This record gives sequence, C-alpha cells and structure tokens, in this order.
Amino acid sequence: MKVIVERLSKFMRKTWRIGADDPAKVVHCLKVGLALSLVSIFYYMRPLYDGVGGNAMWAIMTVVVVFESNVGATFSKCLNRVVATILAGSLGIAVHWVATQSGKAEIFVIGFSVFLFAFAATYSRFVPSFKARFDYGAIIFILTFSLVSVGGYRVDKLVDMAQQRLSTIAIGTSICIIITVFFCPIWAGTQLHRLVQRNFVKLADSLDGCVEEYFKKKDVLKNENEDEETNMKLQGFKCVLNSKGTEESMANLARWEPAHGSFNFRHPWQQYVKIGAAMRRCAYCLENLSICMSYETEVPDQAKKHFGEACLKLSSASSKILRELADMMNNTRKSSKMDFLVFDMNSAVQELRETLKSVPVESNKPKEEVPNNKGDRTMSMSLHEVLPVATLVSLLIENAAR
Amino acid sequence: MKVIVERLSKFMRKTWRIGADDPAKVVHCLKVGLALSLVSIFYYMRPLYDGVGGNAMWAIMTVVVVFESNVGATFSKCLNRVVATILAGSLGIAVHWVATQSGKAEIFVIGFSVFLFAFAATYSRFVPSFKARFDYGAIIFILTFSLVSVGGYRVDKLVDMAQQRLSTIAIGTSICIIITVFFCPIWAGTQLHRLVQRNFVKLADSLDGCVEEYFKKKDVLKNENEDEETNMKLQGFKCVLNSKGTEESMANLARWEPAHGSFNFRHPWQQYVKIGAAMRRCAYCLENLSICMSYETEVPDQAKKHFGEACLKLSSASSKILRELADMMNNTRKSSKMDFLVFDMNSAVQELRETLKSVPVESNKPKEEVPNNKGDRTMSMSLHEVLPVATLVSLLIENAAR
Repeated sequence: MKVIVERLSKFMRKTWRIGADDPAKVVHCLKVGLALSLVSIFYYMRPLYDGVGGNAMWAIMTVVVVFESNVGATFSKCLNRVVATILAGSLGIAVHWVATQSGKAEIFVIGFSVFLFAFAATYSRFVPSFKARFDYGAIIFILTFSLVSVGGYRVDKLVDMAQQRLSTIAIGTSICIIITVFFCPIWAGTQLHRLVQRNFVKLADSLDGCVEEYFKKKDVLKNENEDEETNMKLQGFKCVLNSKGTEESMANLARWEPAHGSFNFRHPWQQYVKIGAAMRRCAYCLENLSICMSYETEVPDQAKKHFGEACLKLSSASSKILRELADMMNNTRKSSKMDFLVFDMNSAVQELRETLKSVPVESNKPKEEVPNNKGDRTMSMSLHEVLPVATLVSLLIENAAR
Repeated sequence: MKVIVERLSKFMRKTWRIGADDPAKVVHCLKVGLALSLVSIFYYMRPLYDGVGGNAMWAIMTVVVVFESNVGATFSKCLNRVVATILAGSLGIAVHWVATQSGKAEIFVIGFSVFLFAFAATYSRFVPSFKARFDYGAIIFILTFSLVSVGGYRVDKLVDMAQQRLSTIAIGTSICIIITVFFCPIWAGTQLHRLVQRNFVKLADSLDGCVEEYFKKKDVLKNENEDEETNMKLQGFKCVLNSKGTEESMANLARWEPAHGSFNFRHPWQQYVKIGAAMRRCAYCLENLSICMSYETEVPDQAKKHFGEACLKLSSASSKILRELADMMNNTRKSSKMDFLVFDMNSAVQELRETLKSVPVESNKPKEEVPNNKGDRTMSMSLHEVLPVATLVSLLIENAAR
C-alpha cells in the first residue's frame, strides 16, 4: 500500500514538474479543452445541429486530430486535411458516378478503385520529400476516398453528405486555427530559434567544463551539490547530439507559419538545420574529449601543467565565441565583437601550437603519455576548425534575417 | 513542356527505386489495399450492414488509421484503440448519465467534463514514458469521450450506439491484425536486428576506408567509378549517426510483438538500443578521423610512412572484429574466433604504441606535424576503447537470446 502511494506521489511530482518547467505545455492543454468545448456548442444548439445535418461529429473529430501544440503543425495539418478531403471527395464522387453507370459491375469498379488508390496513396507515403509535408494528407485521402466511394453505395444523397461533411471540417479547422493563433500562440519558429540558441550556450558550458575538469587539480575537494551541477553542464553536449530530429521537424513546420515577431514568412529556416549540423560536429569533438578524460590516470601532472594554460585559454576563447553567437541570435543582428573574438581564438591556437613545439626540449621522459594530451589538443584544433563553419552559417542567417 | 516531362520521369524513377530497393514497402501497400477491400464488404452485404446499424464507417476508419507497416506498430495501435475506446466510452456514458440526472445543468456538466478530460489526456501526452507507448491511445480517448458524452446529448439509444461502434472497431482491428500477421508479416524486431547488423558492417567499411584513404599514396590514379564507391563506403558511419531515432522507436514497437523467428516474446530489445549507442560512439571517432583527413596537406610523407603500417594493422583488426560481430548477430550465437580477434587487436595497439615511442629518435624534424597523425592514433585508440563496450553488450544479448 505504502509503496503504491509513494510511487504515485513520485509520478505526480514528475508530472507536475513537466508543466512547471514549460508552462507552454499547460497552455496547450487548456487550449485543447477550450477548442473542444467551443466545437461542442454545435451539438447543444438546435439550429446549428440541424444546419449540418447531424454531421457535427466531424467537427469534433477534426479538432481532436488536427490540434497540435505549435502553430506550424496545426496549419499544416489543417491544410492537409482540407485539401485531401476536397480532392478525395470529388474523386470518390466521380468513381461512384462511373460505378453506377456500369450497372452490374458496380461493386467491382468501386472495390478495384479503392484498392488502387489506397495502394498509390500508401506508396506515396514512402517518398521522403512527400512524407515530410503531406503524410497526414495521404492518410486523410485514403480515409475520405474509401468513405465516399464505398459509403456512396448505401447513401442516396451523396453530394449533400459530402457538402455537409466538408462544411463541418471547415468549421473544425477554423476553430483550431483561430485558437492556436490568437490565444497565446506557440510558434514552431520561435521554439526552433530558442532551441538553437540554448544549444550554443550548452556547448560553451560543456566545453569550458570539460577542459577545466581535465586540468583541475585532484586534491581540491568540492561539495557534492556543486559537483552535480558541473556534471549537468558537462553533459550539455549530449542534448546537442540528440536534438537533430527536433530541429528538422521544427524547421519543416516553421515553413508553414505566417510572419510573427521578428521572423518573416520566408525566413530561411533551413539555415537553422545547417547550424544544428555544425553544432553537432562540435559536439562530436566534445564527446571524444570526454572519452579522453576517462584516460586521465595515464597523463602525468607535468604534461598537464605544460599544456594547461594554453588549452584553457583556447577553450575559453572558443566558448566565448559560442556565447557571443548565442547572444547574436538573441538580438538577431551581427555583433561587432565577433571579429575580435575570432582573432583572440586564432592567437590562442597559435600559442598552443608554440607550446606543443617546445615539448621535447623541456620534458623528455613522459613521451608516450603526451600524445594522449595531444589528442586533446587535436580535438580542440578540430573544434576550432569547425567553429568558423558555425560562424559562417550564422552570419549568413543574420544577414538574411534583416 | 520538355522540362516538365523530364522532371516527372526523374521523379518516377526515384519513386520506382524506393520500391525496388525495399520490396517490403510495396507489399505493405498491397496489404493496405487488401484490408480496405475486405472491410468494404460490410457495405456491400445487406445483412452485415444492417447488423452494425449503419456504423460500418467506423470499421473503414479503423483500418485506415491503424494499419502500419510493421506488426509491432499495428499491434500497439490496435490495443491502444480498443482499450481507449472502451475506457472513454464507459466514462462518457457515466458522465452522460450524471448530466441527465442533474436536470437543467446538463450542458454545463457535459461541457466541463469534456474540458477537464481533454485537458488531462492532452497533458498526459507530454509525459515521456507515457507518450512512448500510449500516445495514440490518448488521442482516441479524447475523441471517443467527447463524441460519446457530447453526442449523447442528441442520440437516444446511447448504449446501443456505443456497442455497435465498438463491434465495428473490433471488426476493423481484427482484419488489420490478421492481415499484418498472416500475409508476409514485417516484424519490427527483425528490421531492428538487421539495421544493427548492417550498421556494424558499415562501420567496419568506413573505418577501413578512412584509414586506407589517409595513408594512400597520392599518385596512384583510380577510375572515377571506383572512387565513388569508396566515397559511399566512407560515408557509411553517417548512417550510423542518424539511426538513433529509428532504433529507439523500433525497439519500442518490437516489445509488442509475439514470438517470431528466432526471437522470443521477451527478447531484450533494449540491448539493441545500447549497442546502437556504443556504435554511435565509434562513429563519433570516425567523424573526427575524417575531419583529420582534411588536414592531410600538413602531414609529411615520412611521418605517414612511419605510422602507416601499424595504423593499418590496427584498423583492419578493429574492422575484423566489427565484421565478426555482424556475423555473430546474423547467426545469433557466440563466435569462437572473437577472443582471438580481440587479442589480435590488442597486440596491434601495442605495436602502434611502440612505433609511437620510437618517433623522436628516428625523425627529428617533422615534430609539429606529427601530432596530427598522433591525433589519428588517439582516435584509433579511443575507438579501440569503445569496442570492448560493443563486444560486451552484444555478448550479453547473445547470451540472453538463447
């Protein structure tokens, strides 16, 4: 008994936390409730109900299925639904007409056409470029087509039914669109923008954290709480690694959205995907860096001390650039400090190179252990190579945004 | 005009290729057509149609929405649909009863309960552990609940309607399940198994390719065709990087599947996800290796020659292990050669280490360029560190599979 209560309370706390961390989710839930209550008015009011001939069910269904948490997704689903319904509906009526003309073969004409169109529409869902935008439309197409052409076999006033159904779907979609856009809208574009910006900060944090951790003196004890926090920061790059799917779908959805905030209609959302890819390349380097950290025991303190300063300088220069990029994204304009920071980083790289050259002269014994540390350097190097890419791409987007 | 025809033919070729590459997709499309044709029999046969009281539409809808390309997904959707419908239906009838008892407040009771349950169900979709398994169920719950409780306001024989609707859904789901399982079933588990196995081979190919490319002599000219093929192989690790999402969803779906082929019902599918994670860590190393390849101009031939042999030996040993792992997965049993191969790899690592030690004595001038090459070594090293993880995990699964 006690175990169950404990589990339940733990689950409730976790659930509560999801809402507390992101109030937008709670707002979305409220909006779904509101939309459903609004649409059910069609059932309560006699004239409205009779007006759509008892087909009010379709309005409810549309709201439930179409309502998504961000504006882009709702728009794309609404558009898909309406277009696919019209297309499939008129095609269904045409097939039905052909079938009735053909007399005895009616059932076979209908059956064969259902088979054929279901096959074609399902097949089209496997074409990647089609799937990304019209996946939902294909399902609705199959559904409407079979309902109209097969259902027409039993219903007499087919055109009336199709018209009523279409008007209920129109009512459902318009309620959805009004509520998503005018009540605390959640834009896919804004979310994507914030995600990318947050990822820049996370990368900077974990770069700083990793390199510091590596060169930290072992004997300094920290309290546990702080340690956990640094660990959280260190793992930040993992989020960057995992955000590929989210970024791509967001960029896909953001295309559907009208101009909002500082974003125009044809904002170059695909650039965000490219920035994301560049960031993931940085994150790969960090991953390798953190693998190197687990070798730590092999590296003597002397070597560490030798490289420490230069490495720290390079990493702090790099992370400053990342932070500046995040800031730039926040203000949507080019930063004047950027050139200066890049220059800073390049000189740090140069310095590290010099330090590396002087190694064999200074300390001769830890030869086999040094490479490990150099691996670290190589990674910082490759990180540094990747950075300009990120800079370039984000400059591009900054220009395009104006 | 010509441009349009050209584009269309290009698109058709691409579309054709999707089917030719993976006949399972075509089979799936045929199955959808078959299921729809079967279910429309309910419209054609008078006694069947009257038996479900004109609700045959729901059977068609169920088939269209529930039918997925692999067995696991279809099972999970069917189960979600049936359970959510029963749950929401009975709850809706209960709310409707309460509402009719409360007299004048009927509309408000119904409206408020719709708002409340829609809010709760939408919120539950944000809980990750819930979403992974019951996302579809939550949507169906909202849909059915609002249809029953709101729709009940206008329909007199609510229980009859609910029962008919449930029976049509049962008919739809059973048709789906019968067709997915008995006509050329496509198992999510088998697909996952093959995906992981293919990824092992791809990793091995691109490891071989990368290291060979790096140490290849420049002046040997190859014909273009061959070059493209190696390039394809080199990029193999990118597939491994991108397959995270697929693996996770497949493992999630495979849980729903009954025993099939050499897999039991409680096959440890989560192990595949872990193997996938280990493979991705290997792929990160390869990514860094390929970044190093772009530095190539900096490295003198002498250094390359010095390290070449040992590096090639290590990489071929590693890739042999990867291929052996793929083979092991294919036969679902432990390989006797494994220990031998791991020993081989370890000795290759040792050899490379020796080569590295001897560097400063042998060649004194290219000091600053060597690190780059050493970076390569470090990566091979870290790759080698990661490998035992993969080995371990896959041994685990091999044991569990028996």
